[in-house]
Amino acid sequence: DRPLALIAGPCQMESRDHALEVAEALVGMTAALGMPLIFKTSFDKANRTSISGARGMGLAAALPVFAEIRERFGCPVLTDVHEAEQCAPVAEVVDVLQIPAFLCRQTDLLVAAARTGAVVNVKKGQFLAPWDMRNVVAKLDAAGNDRVLVTERGVSFGYNTLVTDMRSLPIMARDTGCPVVFDATHSVQQPGGQGGSSGGQREFAPVLARAAVAVGVAAVFIETHPDPDHAPSDGPNMIPLRDMPGILRLLTDVDRLAKAHPVRL
Amino acid sequence: DRPLALIAGPCQMESRDHALEVAEALVGMTAALGMPLIFKTSFDKANRTSISGARGMGLAAALPVFAEIRERFGCPVLTDVHEAEQCAPVAEVVDVLQIPAFLCRQTDLLVAAARTGAVVNVKKGQFLAPWDMRNVVAKLDAAGNDRVLVTERGVSFGYNTLVTDMRSLPIMARDTGCPVVFDATHSVQQPGGQGGSSGGQREFAPVLARAAVAVGVAAVFIETHPDPDHAPSDGPNMIPLRDMPGILRLLTDVDRLAKAHPVRL
Amino acid sequence: DRPLALIAGPCQMESRDHALEVAEALVGMTAALGMPLIFKTSFDKANRTSISGARGMGLAAALPVFAEIRERFGCPVLTDVHEAEQCAPVAEVVDVLQIPAFLCRQTDLLVAAARTGAVVNVKKGQFLAPWDMRNVVAKLDAAGNDRVLVTERGVSFGYNTLVTDMRSLPIMARDTGCPVVFDATHSVQQPGGQGGSSGGQREFAPVLARAAVAVGVAAVFIETHPDPDHAPSDGPNMIPLRDMPGILRLLTDVDRLAKAHPVRL
Amino acid sequence: DRPLALIAGPCQMESRDHALEVAEALVGMTAALGMPLIFKTSFDKANRTSISGARGMGLAAALPVFAEIRERFGCPVLTDVHEAEQCAPVAEVVDVLQIPAFLCRQTDLLVAAARTGAVVNVKKGQFLAPWDMRNVVAKLDAAGNDRVLVTERGVSFGYNTLVTDMRSLPIMARDTGCPVVFDATHSVQQPGGQGGSSGGQREFAPVLARAAVAVGVAAVFIETHPDPDHAPSDGPNMIPLRDMPGILRLLTDVDRLAKAHPVRL
Repeated sequence: DRPLALIAGPCQMESRDHALEVAEALVGMTAALGMPLIFKTSFDKANRTSISGARGMGLAAALPVFAEIRERFGCPVLTDVHEAEQCAPVAEVVDVLQIPAFLCRQTDLLVAAARTGAVVNVKKGQFLAPWDMRNVVAKLDAAGNDRVLVTERGVSFGYNTLVTDMRSLPIMARDTGCPVVFDATHSVQQPGGQGGSSGGQREFAPVLARAAVAVGVAAVFIETHPDPDHAPSDGPNMIPLRDMPGILRLLTDVDRLAKAHPVRL
Repeated sequence: DRPLALIAGPCQMESRDHALEVAEALVGMTAALGMPLIFKTSFDKANRTSISGARGMGLAAALPVFAEIRERFGCPVLTDVHEAEQCAPVAEVVDVLQIPAFLCRQTDLLVAAARTGAVVNVKKGQFLAPWDMRNVVAKLDAAGNDRVLVTERGVSFGYNTLVTDMRSLPIMARDTGCPVVFDATHSVQQPGGQGGSSGGQREFAPVLARAAVAVGVAAVFIETHPDPDHAPSDGPNMIPLRDMPGILRLLTDVDRLAKAHPVRL
Repeated sequence: DRPLALIAGPCQMESRDHALEVAEALVGMTAALGMPLIFKTSFDKANRTSISGARGMGLAAALPVFAEIRERFGCPVLTDVHEAEQCAPVAEVVDVLQIPAFLCRQTDLLVAAARTGAVVNVKKGQFLAPWDMRNVVAKLDAAGNDRVLVTERGVSFGYNTLVTDMRSLPIMARDTGCPVVFDATHSVQQPGGQGGSSGGQREFAPVLARAAVAVGVAAVFIETHPDPDHAPSDGPNMIPLRDMPGILRLLTDVDRLAKAHPVRL
Repeated sequence: DRPLALIAGPCQMESRDHALEVAEALVGMTAALGMPLIFKTSFDKANRTSISGARGMGLAAALPVFAEIRERFGCPVLTDVHEAEQCAPVAEVVDVLQIPAFLCRQTDLLVAAARTGAVVNVKKGQFLAPWDMRNVVAKLDAAGNDRVLVTERGVSFGYNTLVTDMRSLPIMARDTGCPVVFDATHSVQQPGGQGGSSGGQREFAPVLARAAVAVGVAAVFIETHPDPDHAPSDGPNMIPLRDMPGILRLLTDVDRLAKAHPVRL
């Protein structure tokens, strides 16, 4: 099996310079570890808890920055789409279209993403059983796209809390046949947990990441920021950029062990 | 407080004749009970479990039927919207725009629905705490619309199962100030519980409806069909049309008791 | 079906005088409503959150008080047992032996309680599905006792929270054949929610009670106290004694409606 | 930090010969890996789903076998206790007294176990938050015993299902100060999932064990049997004895990595 890849970047694209700064840092860290990198950031946060939450730069301003990052650093880029008509223009400059968890059953969005021919990464809904991702992947497949990733990002557990069921990783691998990604930073969100915004437990993101990598995943997804406490969104769960090298080194070590002993259901 | 209203109809608009048949039957039943009726049906099932599930007649074919029902029977009509640009055309013939539970945090859809000036009914996401509906309603309010209903339809409880927390009804009333609707037939869904489609426990819909009405709600939402076992969607949880009169009679009796003794938190 | 009964009293027997005072008040209230009463209180709180929580008067001091209440007021009395050897002595003065929820699968305790010939009320564990109470009742039945009540008191829903699944009431009735009790005050506990003790949401106890009675139950269980805020245990979820008459009046009204329209699964 | 220990053995002591056979095999395997072993088996299954489930050899017959195993193989032995009066006699031949999950809040049992001076391993209840184990450990501490282990064995997640929250491992370590054990085979139980007995997902026990060891634990707890499909209890979740060497080898490798990079909250 191939070595662990990293999908990482700041939750939202705050500016061209900010995105390039984080991308450059991640490119350096992952190169040192021989770890494939997909740079991730969002041009629009379409489901903020509050109407007054910052939503990001928007599609038009962001696309050239994605193109620049891809060209300058030679790494694939990923972003999330929210409406069917965004898929085609975004896919012109982005390698991986991501379907947000809340939208993982919206047929039109899935089909539009699939038809671009880009790789599609679908986050499993917080309300979905892992075996039900089979139906989601079948929608993409029926639209002619089998370059699909599936991502675990926690499941509802009471109110304002998610839990990560590590069984879901091999179940999704078996039931969809797709590479499985573990999203460490959204799995520690506390949705709505701060009244007008979501809380998070940043300290548990590397803990859950180790566990998931030990079970065996194709990639980890980690949102990271030079200064999370002042980030416009997801600050409580993003990892400080300076902590990433240590985390990634351990994860690649755990990955080597896990890949030598793959779980087979 | 005003008497219990009913939001009801078949899950999807199967044909003009089918919609009219069900509407006529419901108009008769509710008139006999002095119960306000809002006729509900969907022109598109945008998040079916499976890509091969029937999705309905579509927007263009359905709008004239909504107009006809409204005119012929004099009752308001409700349907759900899935993308921002559907809101304006749908609001021209429909009285209540409904936001599906999975989409209850999609800011653009909420704002587009609000701006039509129609009443907006938001279903609480299966992943959302009742107090977090305050943030959802604030988005509509910021877009200039305070004619809002909020609907309980169950919350994730393990995999493929929902549970209804009856505390959520007075909590939403207190925290949003909006009339609260209880969706009896979706609360008994078993999402994905039949592999390629959702299961349901039809027999519990009237059970949960009684409980909710005893607590106190503005309206109950019940999907109903002349022949649920042959319906193209939600058959396992829809109520046979012939059972509706008995259910509604009991609910109006329970409602009178509940409204005489309102819950105040 | 028979009219709604009440199982009520203070969480723990604080003193002879305290127990008699509450019993007398409850006897008066229920007589006025024609409502059967079973007086409940505990001689020992065996599973307090904290080692320093008050546990009650103890078995030896409490038994004569139960006898006195039974004789003076002519009402049956109920208390909970925690170890097999308590069952026989307690059953000499108490009409109903109650098995605590945490202990509902402890075979020896169930068998010892059953063998006394007293009525046994088993609370469903917070970790148990309603259909699994069938196995619990089968243990009592195998020990020769078919005078059994089963009680819903909430099920684990994330951490420090319970939720009441109203479907559980008719499911337990169908699957066990026993009268079903709804415990309104423990269903609103927040286990461990105050660090060293359990929290509670007293304001929701009558809300859930209405819902359960509308569904249809044989009895409601409500812990009540003249001054809950100064009670040694379960203060946050007990109902002030002075609020009981209004609550009971509404519940008996709802019960008449529900019993006229029984749920049949 | 010390290397990973193993707590293992058959769910119940079926006979002297059976217990010795499994103990000998485990002693050999763990010696080869330099892994400390605590042999575990139960003399009584006190909370079987069904009254007709086999309960084991009983206290009197089992104690000499524990003594023999301890003497012959030089390894400490562990068993679970269910009533306060069992603690003293059992502690005479057993090194670790284990408190079952359902009983983790029973004060008398905790105090009696603590007073023996034996090491006490408390399983976290399926209904308990990890931070609430602090109150449990405080009860043992107040009784004069600070030689305490705490064990994660899954938390209720809907009906008939448990989920393992890997955050609970470092939370319990921080909040109790005790060594933390991960019970891999009970965490994959499906309580009551087979009607008259509990189901299990044996294939996930090593998956969750890897994840937990990667996070960092003092010991793993694994029930194992030469022929699980014919075991009198817990067959669906026990690991075949022949599979243990491979599982243990990987776990010790993962443990070395994890112990070199301890999680600190």
